[in-house]
Amino acid sequence: MAEQVCLREVGLRDGLQNISLFMPSQQKKDWISAEFAAGVKEIEITSYVPPKLLQQFIDAEEVTRHALTIDALAVNALIPNIKGAERGMALGVSQLNYVQSVSESHNQANVRRSTRESVDDFKRIIALRNASPTSKRIRIAGGLATAFGCTIEGPIKEGRVLAWAEEILAAGADELIVADTVGYANPAAVKSIFSRILPMAGKTPVAAHFHDTRGLGLANVVAALDVGVRRFDASLGGLGGCPYAPGASGNIAMEDCAFMLESMGFTTGIDLVRLLEVRRTVEAQLGGITFYGSIAKSGLPKGYQPITAVAA
Amino acid sequence: MAEQVCLREVGLRDGLQNISLFMPSQQKKDWISAEFAAGVKEIEITSYVPPKLLQQFIDAEEVTRHALTIDALAVNALIPNIKGAERGMALGVSQLNYVQSVSESHNQANVRRSTRESVDDFKRIIALRNASPTSKRIRIAGGLATAFGCTIEGPIKEGRVLAWAEEILAAGADELIVADTVGYANPAAVKSIFSRILPMAGKTPVAAHFHDTRGLGLANVVAALDVGVRRFDASLGGLGGCPYAPGASGNIAMEDCAFMLESMGFTTGIDLVRLLEVRRTVEAQLGGITFYGSIAKSGLPKGYQPITAVAA
Repeated sequence: MAEQVCLREVGLRDGLQNISLFMPSQQKKDWISAEFAAGVKEIEITSYVPPKLLQQFIDAEEVTRHALTIDALAVNALIPNIKGAERGMALGVSQLNYVQSVSESHNQANVRRSTRESVDDFKRIIALRNASPTSKRIRIAGGLATAFGCTIEGPIKEGRVLAWAEEILAAGADELIVADTVGYANPAAVKSIFSRILPMAGKTPVAAHFHDTRGLGLANVVAALDVGVRRFDASLGGLGGCPYAPGASGNIAMEDCAFMLESMGFTTGIDLVRLLEVRRTVEAQLGGITFYGSIAKSGLPKGYQPITAVAA
Repeated sequence: MAEQVCLREVGLRDGLQNISLFMPSQQKKDWISAEFAAGVKEIEITSYVPPKLLQQFIDAEEVTRHALTIDALAVNALIPNIKGAERGMALGVSQLNYVQSVSESHNQANVRRSTRESVDDFKRIIALRNASPTSKRIRIAGGLATAFGCTIEGPIKEGRVLAWAEEILAAGADELIVADTVGYANPAAVKSIFSRILPMAGKTPVAAHFHDTRGLGLANVVAALDVGVRRFDASLGGLGGCPYAPGASGNIAMEDCAFMLESMGFTTGIDLVRLLEVRRTVEAQLGGITFYGSIAKSGLPKGYQPITAVAA
């Protein structure tokens, strides 16, 4: 039996939040349905940020209601604060991904409060969920952004990441997401951090969220796999980018990551041929937006035999 | 003390052989000098193929004579046959890199003979070198192309690679180069092959030559590092490509690979700031040819501290 690796699509959130062009709600819904049909079972479908801050997510409720019609889909959404958590709990999603930065300056720039205030809010969100009889099944993940470096502060010391990780886990996070928000990670740092965090987390799932800003995205996945990480965020066509690094690519590309994992003998549950069709559709819909990734250009290798069966 | 990793530039051979535009000899010579000055101590500067087959290398002798004026440069050149070896020995280069494919069909297509005939020629080349009083110091490397897969034959069984590796080592190769010519490798296959080949090779250096055709180039470097490989081929701007995969990228990008290694704590001897200047110059000279790689677009991370000192 091939070992399983779980890939979560974040393009509808991390990708679209960097695109000024509004993607019509129907296209977002079709993307979710098509990618689920290709075998992606976890999708971060939107962000419950104030719509006045990010017009792209003005349809968050509508998109969420569609996603919730897909029974086996783990409907994830990003939340920046308690208000976002309340919106997600009212909708009844599967999982809310709360994000705070390790970098103090980045946290101030991103959510306009200190990291201490952020983690206190996280605890309040957990308490809110625990107190709500209708929200008991909603999982709350704690995400640590800029865990490997920050465009404002530069390198981030590992000890700071570990300290926040400990506090987030102790607060009762259902998952810990360690994010290289702006492409500062390298395989040595990845091995070092995750080999310390995984034992701290015990049975709590730990996910790695890598950006390919400096071309090391998949190299970092290999390093993380090596020390036991089995959950990764990725985005179709590597959508994402970073407002501080114009021209730089975004998240690791879902299709390349799935290809790599299946080539290595892991099962992702993803049908690559169908996933590449979804990519073609979304790329055409977002005409003019740069899509990254190699497999879509080079094609699958001759005689390629994925672990996950491919549609006839 | 940081552990050393040796990067060999192959863009002047593997890169230029895929470009129909002739690069003026003076530009080739300037590229070699500038990249050496940036800290790259081994460069495959040309190919001794018949000029009628590859016009790009019509100036092989002139370029070689220039490279040989740079004292500490390991002047490498590719040879497809005995004739090429004779040209290289007459010039007195540092090292000749002989290449044969593991794939029978690819070898026929590439050098129009069987793999058996190719390895027999390799033995003749070693004998020729050994018999020449003036060529004793010339190193002869044996390269295995399509070691992970082939656009004609598809997947290549590891046993075939190991058998050829054994024969090439027994023939007296001064270095073994294992090449993923068309981007079929993955980190699991890389670990498996190199963990078997390194003990076979003993003190003979083993180099990995990866292409980034499917985006796994640096991921494969990480896997190879993990099992002990410390020599890699790379090309400035990822020049290379493959005539069978239009639009696909080429070799791993020298600048991204050096960045990754230095970030991980290895020393490459390469000054990245100067290397990126060389890239800008060569990219401008080859106007219209696509250059790959991420660091040139995203820039180095804030507070980046390489192991190799950067020019003031």
